[in-house]
Amino acid sequence: MSTSEKRQSTSGKRMSQSGIEPKMETMKLTEEQAASSNNTPAESAKPTEKPKKQDKERKDQKSTAKSSQQQSKKKAEEPALIGITCSKSEDLSEWYQQVILKGEMLEFTDIPGCYIYQPASYRIWEFIQSFFNDRIRKMKVKNCYFPLFITEANLQREKDHIEGFAAEVAWVTEGGKNKLEKRLAVRPTSETAMYSFYSKKIRSHRDLPLKMNQWNNVVRWEFKHPMPFLRSREFLWQEGHTAHMTEEEAGKEVLEILDHYAAIYEDLLAVPVVKGKKTIAEQFPGAHYTTTLEGFIPSVGRGIQAATSHCLGQHFAKMFDITVEDPNQQVKDGQARDKLHVWQNSWGFTTRSIGVMVLIHGDDKGLIIPPRVAEVQVVIVPVGVTAKMADADKQKLYDEVDKLRQTLEDVDIRVECDYREGYNVGYKFNDWEMKGVPLRLEFGPKDAAKGIVTTSRRDQSGSKGEIPVSDIGSEVPKLLEEIQKSMYQKASDEYAAHRKIVRDWADFVPTLNDKNVILVPHCTTEDCEDQIKKDSTGNVEGQEVDVRAPSMGAKSLCIPAEQPEEIKEGTKCVNPKCGKEAVKWVMFGRSY
Amino acid sequence: MSTSEKRQSTSGKRMSQSGIEPKMETMKLTEEQAASSNNTPAESAKPTEKPKKQDKERKDQKSTAKSSQQQSKKKAEEPALIGITCSKSEDLSEWYQQVILKGEMLEFTDIPGCYIYQPASYRIWEFIQSFFNDRIRKMKVKNCYFPLFITEANLQREKDHIEGFAAEVAWVTEGGKNKLEKRLAVRPTSETAMYSFYSKKIRSHRDLPLKMNQWNNVVRWEFKHPMPFLRSREFLWQEGHTAHMTEEEAGKEVLEILDHYAAIYEDLLAVPVVKGKKTIAEQFPGAHYTTTLEGFIPSVGRGIQAATSHCLGQHFAKMFDITVEDPNQQVKDGQARDKLHVWQNSWGFTTRSIGVMVLIHGDDKGLIIPPRVAEVQVVIVPVGVTAKMADADKQKLYDEVDKLRQTLEDVDIRVECDYREGYNVGYKFNDWEMKGVPLRLEFGPKDAAKGIVTTSRRDQSGSKGEIPVSDIGSEVPKLLEEIQKSMYQKASDEYAAHRKIVRDWADFVPTLNDKNVILVPHCTTEDCEDQIKKDSTGNVEGQEVDVRAPSMGAKSLCIPAEQPEEIKEGTKCVNPKCGKEAVKWVMFGRSY
Repeated sequence: MSTSEKRQSTSGKRMSQSGIEPKMETMKLTEEQAASSNNTPAESAKPTEKPKKQDKERKDQKSTAKSSQQQSKKKAEEPALIGITCSKSEDLSEWYQQVILKGEMLEFTDIPGCYIYQPASYRIWEFIQSFFNDRIRKMKVKNCYFPLFITEANLQREKDHIEGFAAEVAWVTEGGKNKLEKRLAVRPTSETAMYSFYSKKIRSHRDLPLKMNQWNNVVRWEFKHPMPFLRSREFLWQEGHTAHMTEEEAGKEVLEILDHYAAIYEDLLAVPVVKGKKTIAEQFPGAHYTTTLEGFIPSVGRGIQAATSHCLGQHFAKMFDITVEDPNQQVKDGQARDKLHVWQNSWGFTTRSIGVMVLIHGDDKGLIIPPRVAEVQVVIVPVGVTAKMADADKQKLYDEVDKLRQTLEDVDIRVECDYREGYNVGYKFNDWEMKGVPLRLEFGPKDAAKGIVTTSRRDQSGSKGEIPVSDIGSEVPKLLEEIQKSMYQKASDEYAAHRKIVRDWADFVPTLNDKNVILVPHCTTEDCEDQIKKDSTGNVEGQEVDVRAPSMGAKSLCIPAEQPEEIKEGTKCVNPKCGKEAVKWVMFGRSY
Repeated sequence: MSTSEKRQSTSGKRMSQSGIEPKMETMKLTEEQAASSNNTPAESAKPTEKPKKQDKERKDQKSTAKSSQQQSKKKAEEPALIGITCSKSEDLSEWYQQVILKGEMLEFTDIPGCYIYQPASYRIWEFIQSFFNDRIRKMKVKNCYFPLFITEANLQREKDHIEGFAAEVAWVTEGGKNKLEKRLAVRPTSETAMYSFYSKKIRSHRDLPLKMNQWNNVVRWEFKHPMPFLRSREFLWQEGHTAHMTEEEAGKEVLEILDHYAAIYEDLLAVPVVKGKKTIAEQFPGAHYTTTLEGFIPSVGRGIQAATSHCLGQHFAKMFDITVEDPNQQVKDGQARDKLHVWQNSWGFTTRSIGVMVLIHGDDKGLIIPPRVAEVQVVIVPVGVTAKMADADKQKLYDEVDKLRQTLEDVDIRVECDYREGYNVGYKFNDWEMKGVPLRLEFGPKDAAKGIVTTSRRDQSGSKGEIPVSDIGSEVPKLLEEIQKSMYQKASDEYAAHRKIVRDWADFVPTLNDKNVILVPHCTTEDCEDQIKKDSTGNVEGQEVDVRAPSMGAKSLCIPAEQPEEIKEGTKCVNPKCGKEAVKWVMFGRSY
């Protein structure tokens, strides 16, 4: 994996300059501001007492609470929560930046394109790692670690494939106070490091299949419009690299991995994806073929590449001399066996996925995290606590809340209790909603009297329910699963509703402009795709131009594995300038 | 954490030039050779058919076996295993290099000091990660990820502490085809990146404690004698950074973390360690105090620093302006509360630990991996398979072996079956012994007839046993635990036997020369330690110089938490040139 396609498979294909929305610039500016304040925190104004969750404080708070003087002091200081101040539908870029910053997913640094993954997002990455590791371990894939640095000589061996890469490699040229004799590349990907080793390690057909994977950081320097999670200069990923005896075996694995990737999106992140194969124009140059998952961001009607799994064929094996002797050849004594080049795959999954999840599920109140990957699945907020309340009564309520927590933790639910003093209930609700906690339980003296807890689902604003206290150990896990499924279903329905079959060119651009991706009968040739990209910019004469809709052209996203129907003989390609026969339904769209 | 002490705490304090053993040079040469062959694998001679384990092949092998023609062909090619060709006691450096390479723990690359962690060693790292994550999660520490690159401006903020670091920072100066406006440091550690953020993130006492940890790669460039795992230019570690309201709370955490580190060594890696505190001379400059684990390599009688946990005090908080308002202060209306600087800790654990484990347990046959971290805990080798054996009989035996495997996997034992054809049983035994698999089960027609499996423990060469087939599900896990404990006990006894109490200076150097570390009554002052280092080089007049024993001086390893006895009033420091009162028993030794 290298060159432009590799980036595409992982941190997103660079958008053509013309396709960048104006808001990206806004984000960049804000980022620089953030960075500069980060750089000199001593000089920056330091807001006082901005609240943060901290359930460890509970005991301190409880004892502090007894000092009524302090209590009233804090009351006076009661802070107001500054929530998300713009609407997702009106300004996706600004909304995105606000939800990830205020939701404490990510923080900017003084290096544009390099971000801090705060615990709320890193935890999601850990869930993904654990899920994927379980699956690939069953396939006998082994995790390993290769160096961050690659010598230029070694990197150059990939010369034919690296053209697109040269522009984005970060180079180390100094070590301590000395210039290095030879500069070192910070890995943009690890083929050259790994395949030199494969050539040594694979000595016989008995060493096949060889299946290695690493979780690491990679750096791709040269692009102008970083976007948190989606396109960053450093990102985290796994890169799997395998070698097989036969094309058939390699091909089977490519699809198996694609299934695992789809499971991460659909089962963990509640994000629907379309499985397919890239057209020749869009596949990794040098790959035998590329399979892909394509997601969809409804607010802008754009596709987004979610993950790719490549069959590299024997191309790299030939470049790196990865061969085995043919074990099945009948040879005479002394006769050397033929050398066979191995069949290779590579597959990568990145932190981009977290950004896709945020973009799809979030709403105007902030993040919505699917329960299976939520660091905090349930927050319990004590309600009905008044200033006049006796300490003993409050203590009793808190003890009951703590029992609820214990019950839920006993069934492996990740719970926080919000005992913060000095914040009103509304503040707390908004705060946890902004952070995307999927389920809130409210519990006050009235609930206690009735023996119930009040539930509030994050995914269905305003939808409240009640669960008998005695049942929370069984009902809360069920409710979380329901939220998980419902989030997926909603996103899936939306994607389905915006995946339109288009048979006539006349409907092509208008359908795109209605924030859809489209399925069209297509010839799958490269020239035709280029033509379509040019002719679908949306700046069509006589048609109103929506300033927020990108004027970028549509590209082929994939040839979906599940075709809507068979292409009837004689069907022409949707592009009237093409004239060739259609061979497949191809999904086209504007895309990230 | 930065400067020289930080390296010490993690990748080993640089030895004084005079203290480098001649063998290190040998290793370096070999590494370069290895690197150059790695760089041009196409040109390097490719050994034919060097066997590797590959249990996935079983089915292929079984069917191939039916072709008797191929069978005899393979027989003719039966390879000989090239084991470890030198003795651990005679040449530790050469032995170490051979066991980690042939045991497939690590591979050299074309960049000296940058290594490939093969699955056998990376798996151990994963076990450590999982174990430690479980523990710190209970302490409410949260994992996160900070960028690889740090701007020079930001790095400079640590100026006072960074002097020792400047010499070992790798700098990125080029991105793609352009020179960067400002060069970027590849993180040698993440204080400057993290504490700028802490200054923003901690706005109130309610944000305390803040406990973050990251698992990442760091780079320290400038040293001349890399040694796999122990001292490498890039290494993997976790770095925990926490901020607290009080010194007491910070201090409690420092020791809690040290306990977890000790548990990784003792309970997972079966490596005994001594807990203690560094003397002023050896602590991290800038730290309030440094706690440490000290290990011991019996073959050379040297200490080795295993992990450190620092209380940083308020020093960094002052540099990075990390403050909160005093929540307990009684203030009048309008009066501003006092600012309090937070108390900070930092603690790191690195892949060095894997090297320590290898050095302590391995023997002349190769690695010995403790069962709890062994990727393969049990290997089952079918025995008594002869060329004349009917296919059906062999199939029957293999099916029975497979049942054994299933039984063991059902009780969560990690098992491999070695069905490789074309290798004799002796080869297989040696191969798995070299890789350090803690328990081998042998199973042949005779065992089957008796209903037993034969056991062979890796840690006790030649010690065989028998387990009834019906009991393996319960007996094998017990035996593995016994191996784990016995490995620890052996190493612990050895350490204890080489930790000598020395009261007179006359015994100091001779006891060191007998490959011991020593406990001496000491004044704990810096000048005195320098004097001792100078006077304990071992090149004592009239004494024979052992070329393999380093002539390096002894340094203080730690003030052990567990003191051998109370220092009696009036006891003088062991150093006759010192003359001060002894205040503690201090452990001294030559060290890595």
